[in-house]
Amino acid sequence: MSTPQKVNLTEKFGLFAEHWTPKVVGEVNGQQVKLVKLVGEFVWHAHEDEDELFLVARGVLRMRFRDGDVRLEEGELIVVPRGVEHLPVAETEETWIMLVEPASTVNTGNAGGERTVTELERL
Amino acid sequence: MSTPQKVNLTEKFGLFAEHWTPKVVGEVNGQQVKLVKLVGEFVWHAHEDEDELFLVARGVLRMRFRDGDVRLEEGELIVVPRGVEHLPVAETEETWIMLVEPASTVNTGNAGGERTVTELERL
Repeated sequence: MSTPQKVNLTEKFGLFAEHWTPKVVGEVNGQQVKLVKLVGEFVWHAHEDEDELFLVARGVLRMRFRDGDVRLEEGELIVVPRGVEHLPVAETEETWIMLVEPASTVNTGNAGGERTVTELERL
Repeated sequence: MSTPQKVNLTEKFGLFAEHWTPKVVGEVNGQQVKLVKLVGEFVWHAHEDEDELFLVARGVLRMRFRDGDVRLEEGELIVVPRGVEHLPVAETEETWIMLVEPASTVNTGNAGGERTVTELERL
């Protein structure tokens, strides 16, 4: 097989501008590594069967939960366990996130709606 | 359930000094997030059933494969697919890595030997 290729996160983030639209940059044991740019706030939702890892690559993320908020800066991560309602909010003008979650995870989870993205582009 | 807690990578790296000894800082869908500090070179090995994601948090990692090398700086990641022989080498005095791999993954894979760590500490 060919030599595995590396992924430069900053370079990959530079390839797209859309917000709340995850892009796939890698796979590991059935999980996908996705990059997403956040602006403003998303929608309250949960993923019934999937945990979701958020690692802040740039900016500040406020992750709201029903019983409290967690504020994350660059180099900080949080795992939202399956079934837990959450609302991601970009506290900076634009916040860049690396996600680790299954291919099956839909961005809006059980909330659905117009911000749902089902076909993810691969970078 | 209680509010999920965040993980500050720099803070967690500050809690240990050993080299080539992964520490567990989180779990997502059966994968573990591990932190490890590398110095010098490791041993050639492969993991027969597990892909392994390396994200460079500090320093430079040279990942050697049988058919070529890949040099990774901070903010770059690589997924070593299952079955692929690899030899991680720290090119800087100390290189900090975030790993995503199953709990079952043993650092030395199929090579074994004295550098094998089987009981991982949780930070």
